[in-house]
Amino acid sequence: MQRIASGIDGLDQILFGGFPKGRSILVAGEPGTGKTTLCLHYLYHGLQQGESALFVSIDEKPEYVLSDALSLGWNLDPFLESGHLHIMDITQHFGRLGAQEPIDMSHVIDAIMAKIKSTHATRVVIDPIAPLVFGDTQMHQVVSYIRALIFALEDSGDVTTLLTSYVPVGTERVSIMGAEEFATSGIILLRLEQLHQRYVRTLRVKKMRGTRMDLSAHHIEIMAKRGIVVRNPL
Amino acid sequence: MQRIASGIDGLDQILFGGFPKGRSILVAGEPGTGKTTLCLHYLYHGLQQGESALFVSIDEKPEYVLSDALSLGWNLDPFLESGHLHIMDITQHFGRLGAQEPIDMSHVIDAIMAKIKSTHATRVVIDPIAPLVFGDTQMHQVVSYIRALIFALEDSGDVTTLLTSYVPVGTERVSIMGAEEFATSGIILLRLEQLHQRYVRTLRVKKMRGTRMDLSAHHIEIMAKRGIVVRNPL
Amino acid sequence: MQRIASGIDGLDQILFGGFPKGRSILVAGEPGTGKTTLCLHYLYHGLQQGESALFVSIDEKPEYVLSDALSLGWNLDPFLESGHLHIMDITQHFGRLGAQEPIDMSHVIDAIMAKIKSTHATRVVIDPIAPLVFGDTQMHQVVSYIRALIFALEDSGDVTTLLTSYVPVGTERVSIMGAEEFATSGIILLRLEQLHQRYVRTLRVKKMRGTRMDLSAHHIEIMAKRGIVVRNPL
Amino acid sequence: MQRIASGIDGLDQILFGGFPKGRSILVAGEPGTGKTTLCLHYLYHGLQQGESALFVSIDEKPEYVLSDALSLGWNLDPFLESGHLHIMDITQHFGRLGAQEPIDMSHVIDAIMAKIKSTHATRVVIDPIAPLVFGDTQMHQVVSYIRALIFALEDSGDVTTLLTSYVPVGTERVSIMGAEEFATSGIILLRLEQLHQRYVRTLRVKKMRGTRMDLSAHHIEIMAKRGIVVRNPL
Amino acid sequence: MQRIASGIDGLDQILFGGFPKGRSILVAGEPGTGKTTLCLHYLYHGLQQGESALFVSIDEKPEYVLSDALSLGWNLDPFLESGHLHIMDITQHFGRLGAQEPIDMSHVIDAIMAKIKSTHATRVVIDPIAPLVFGDTQMHQVVSYIRALIFALEDSGDVTTLLTSYVPVGTERVSIMGAEEFATSGIILLRLEQLHQRYVRTLRVKKMRGTRMDLSAHHIEIMAKRGIVVRNPL
Amino acid sequence: MQRIASGIDGLDQILFGGFPKGRSILVAGEPGTGKTTLCLHYLYHGLQQGESALFVSIDEKPEYVLSDALSLGWNLDPFLESGHLHIMDITQHFGRLGAQEPIDMSHVIDAIMAKIKSTHATRVVIDPIAPLVFGDTQMHQVVSYIRALIFALEDSGDVTTLLTSYVPVGTERVSIMGAEEFATSGIILLRLEQLHQRYVRTLRVKKMRGTRMDLSAHHIEIMAKRGIVVRNPL
Repeated sequence: MQRIASGIDGLDQILFGGFPKGRSILVAGEPGTGKTTLCLHYLYHGLQQGESALFVSIDEKPEYVLSDALSLGWNLDPFLESGHLHIMDITQHFGRLGAQEPIDMSHVIDAIMAKIKSTHATRVVIDPIAPLVFGDTQMHQVVSYIRALIFALEDSGDVTTLLTSYVPVGTERVSIMGAEEFATSGIILLRLEQLHQRYVRTLRVKKMRGTRMDLSAHHIEIMAKRGIVVRNPL
Repeated sequence: MQRIASGIDGLDQILFGGFPKGRSILVAGEPGTGKTTLCLHYLYHGLQQGESALFVSIDEKPEYVLSDALSLGWNLDPFLESGHLHIMDITQHFGRLGAQEPIDMSHVIDAIMAKIKSTHATRVVIDPIAPLVFGDTQMHQVVSYIRALIFALEDSGDVTTLLTSYVPVGTERVSIMGAEEFATSGIILLRLEQLHQRYVRTLRVKKMRGTRMDLSAHHIEIMAKRGIVVRNPL
Repeated sequence: MQRIASGIDGLDQILFGGFPKGRSILVAGEPGTGKTTLCLHYLYHGLQQGESALFVSIDEKPEYVLSDALSLGWNLDPFLESGHLHIMDITQHFGRLGAQEPIDMSHVIDAIMAKIKSTHATRVVIDPIAPLVFGDTQMHQVVSYIRALIFALEDSGDVTTLLTSYVPVGTERVSIMGAEEFATSGIILLRLEQLHQRYVRTLRVKKMRGTRMDLSAHHIEIMAKRGIVVRNPL
Repeated sequence: MQRIASGIDGLDQILFGGFPKGRSILVAGEPGTGKTTLCLHYLYHGLQQGESALFVSIDEKPEYVLSDALSLGWNLDPFLESGHLHIMDITQHFGRLGAQEPIDMSHVIDAIMAKIKSTHATRVVIDPIAPLVFGDTQMHQVVSYIRALIFALEDSGDVTTLLTSYVPVGTERVSIMGAEEFATSGIILLRLEQLHQRYVRTLRVKKMRGTRMDLSAHHIEIMAKRGIVVRNPL
Repeated sequence: MQRIASGIDGLDQILFGGFPKGRSILVAGEPGTGKTTLCLHYLYHGLQQGESALFVSIDEKPEYVLSDALSLGWNLDPFLESGHLHIMDITQHFGRLGAQEPIDMSHVIDAIMAKIKSTHATRVVIDPIAPLVFGDTQMHQVVSYIRALIFALEDSGDVTTLLTSYVPVGTERVSIMGAEEFATSGIILLRLEQLHQRYVRTLRVKKMRGTRMDLSAHHIEIMAKRGIVVRNPL
Repeated sequence: MQRIASGIDGLDQILFGGFPKGRSILVAGEPGTGKTTLCLHYLYHGLQQGESALFVSIDEKPEYVLSDALSLGWNLDPFLESGHLHIMDITQHFGRLGAQEPIDMSHVIDAIMAKIKSTHATRVVIDPIAPLVFGDTQMHQVVSYIRALIFALEDSGDVTTLLTSYVPVGTERVSIMGAEEFATSGIILLRLEQLHQRYVRTLRVKKMRGTRMDLSAHHIEIMAKRGIVVRNPL
């Protein structure tokens, strides 16, 4: 099995070499746990190696994605200019006022796949996955959409994708629909945990098909320039 | 990234300089935890600096907003008279008896955006956000409305907005619909916590895109004239 | 801000002078926690001062309201005869067998407002609030009704209202619909708590707009002639 | 306030004299906690004093009610023969196979009220209440039916009624619909509690309008001939 | 009251002589707790006394019922051959692919009652009860069906029936619909409980109309040839 | 009763010889607990003995099933080439974008049964079961489908099947629909449990018809070449 380095040292060790290449991995966590940061770290690492990357942004305007990266010490502008990085703004699909009908997801997914093809991206982030499948309240359709998206991504060749998932605050779940975790090849869970009166950030790999892994939860920090820094296990 | 001071000393320190300018932040808490007080503090601070401010009131009549501020020792009348402060009363949209159809949210949001434009407000409070999106029980529409509102606010230029959210009593959630927390750039959680048989007020920043932050929960007090006073971490 | 004494000594101290005049306050608790007793205490205190009062009874027939008061040592008959107290029996709206349509709440609310006007009541009790809004299962309508009722009450001038709310047994909530707590200006929570194998009654102010308050839970007792007696904090 | 002795010594002490006469009281508990036994005890005590009694049986055939009483050492046959006791069998309303429409509750309630009138019963038991209101899934109708039934009972003069309620196993609730507890004047909760590895029966009065009461949970036993025997508080 | 021995020594002692004759008892438990074993034990004991028995099998084919019994050391073939035991295979009613309409339960219940009559069975097992009433999602109909079945069984004369109920894993309930426990005369709860890091089997009688009973949970074992063996109380 | 060895030493001991031949067993666990690994182990063991095997893959493409096995040290290619192993790709049934109608499950089940017949497989894995029955939201149909599938499998002769089930993260359940556990003859539960700050893998047999079993939870490890290795009981 081929690996693709996340660029986050400790995480690559936890996974015995990096993400399984060509698979799709869920990055789950409550708001504020560092999901977008982890994804930017993954993209930035690839860009520095000369890879092409695509960031599909649903909740945030592209300019905020750039300024969020900058606040972490990463200037993405050169990569945008060189054409190695693309930020796909599909926010307009999701912020329509008074829309009476659910969004046609097959159009959105087609657009994402076309973009991956035209940009030759090998590292893709979809941040977050939930709005892509929210429109349908029937469980069998949510599952169909997610599986269709994952299969399309995995069929498209050399693409390894991180998808972030909404974890509703105050639950033990890893996704908002309870279905996102099944079709993906891996799950990384980010949490804020209370330990001796302090809140600490943790990262845990809950599932990763096709590789050994370290089951422990690890302390992490978010540091300027360095992004996600994995510390000792809990 | 530019900052805008909340005017609450300890909170600006927790955020390493204040709110990210131009973003929208959720102020979440059960009834009685100080959400409206925090918002008034934020507005009052700006008004004292000569900024313009808009308070969009949904649950309370404007005269009560003024008297609530006065009970905190803040006289807002001079700012109303000088035209720096506007209180937008949209309560009449929400208290219609026997209304069979949901309120048309796009009209309400348009009205808010027009008001922001005409008043040149840079500090906006929407207290609370939930009724703006309650009318729709379909999750994908709730999310669409919130995202539409947030995008409109963030597109309108130099406006930094606080939106308060209903936290149902007795739950661990940060919003009533479970969706408000996703589109906003930050979350501040206010709680009443039981500690050694006493109830104490706490404030915690759960998420803030584009800035470092202190993850700890802090004791706070509400004091006449001084508003929200941040004490030691828990 | 003007105050209106509840007549319950300890509670007026907790609120630094009494209820905020002209506002509406929720009295929440499971069945058997003393909600009706607290409301009767509030009315009886006003009647003794020469004020006018209205008790809107929904779950109980007026004669039982009177006998419940009598069992507490309070004879309300003289006040009924002098026209200072009115008990509004709207039970017939709610006990209709086989009613296929929800009750038209706007008629009921209009009737309550007309009664307040004709009786010049300054102290009003609605016991309980939930059936007034039960008919609608759509959240946005429940919220509309409650807000319409609260706004009507607060617009009617010099009326300070207590509304009791059903707290389903075995939950941490403060209302049955999860919406009653948002539109009211204050919340008083009554509980039966188990402490060292004994059940004790407690009272806690969870929210009160426009005033300082003591956050602690207090022991209370229900005593003949004296009604609600507030003891030491827990 | 007039009292009616339950005939259960300890319970009458807990209530400072017995049930409030003319009211309706909910007897709540999981299956197997002694609800029917408590009701039979209440009826049997009245019959021995020469009162008339009516047992409305919904889950059990009349012959099983009699044999259950006999297994407790109470022979009800003489009272049936003398016309002091009537057992109303309305099971046939509820066991119809394949019924597509909910039962018309107003007919059932009318039949109960007519029976009370014709039998001059002063002690009535409805065991259990839930099937009378199950047919409707709309909360406002369930509440309407229960209130209609309670009002009819309380208007019928000198009738004091016990209604048993289903408490679903494994919950903290006192009724199956979450509504039965609001319209009744009192609630008695029977439980099986685990104490030092043993299961013990307990009785607690959670609510009783118009009377003082002892809030403690009490151990109880069910003994042949003596029925419910109240022991020491927990 | 007449008794019918379960044949499980300890259980008959817990019930002070056995099941109440002619009644219907629920045997509740998660998958794997021994419900079918207890039912087979009850039937096998009666067969050895020369009684007739009927096993209504819904989840398992008859040949598996026989082999399950054999794995416990009980050869049921001689009783099948002598006509004392009948296994009624109604699995075909429940495994229809793509069935659009719920099964007509009155036909199924009629078939069961006819079989009881023709076989003169005095010991009946229905394993499990839930599929008989699953078709209907309206609570009032589920309750109607169960009550109709129980009444039919209890009217059919000398039949004592055990009905097993699905307890969803990870809940505290005793049935899947939350309704099965109300119409039956008794409830026996089987559990796997974790005790000092070990899992042990327990049996507890939660309800049994018309008899005294021991409330304690008891350890049980399942042993070849001996079936359910009741050990010491927990 | 005939047995079929799982090939996992410790598990065969726990089951006193292996799975009951011809039955269907549920392998339940959260994502990442080793369900697919256990199933591959079971198939690989049979293949080494010369048996035929069928892997029905729903969430993963066949090439990923092969590479997952390879990452465990098991090369399945020779068995594919010799015709002893078949991987049935039915993913295309489940990843259709915008499908408005549920999948016709009878077609899918027919296809699976035909494949079993044509390949003479004696070891079958369906990974996972849930999408086969997701399309229907009516409980009675879900149960019908599962039962139909199980009956078809058990009627097909000499086939022993493992079906994996989705356990939603953060619950105590053993399946996503709450119904899969009833029709299967056995349940094996895989978990990640937190023990002294570490996460350990555990295996527990919760139910197995027709055999004795060891109720304890056991530590397990997943090791290259060796697959599931059962360690000491917890």
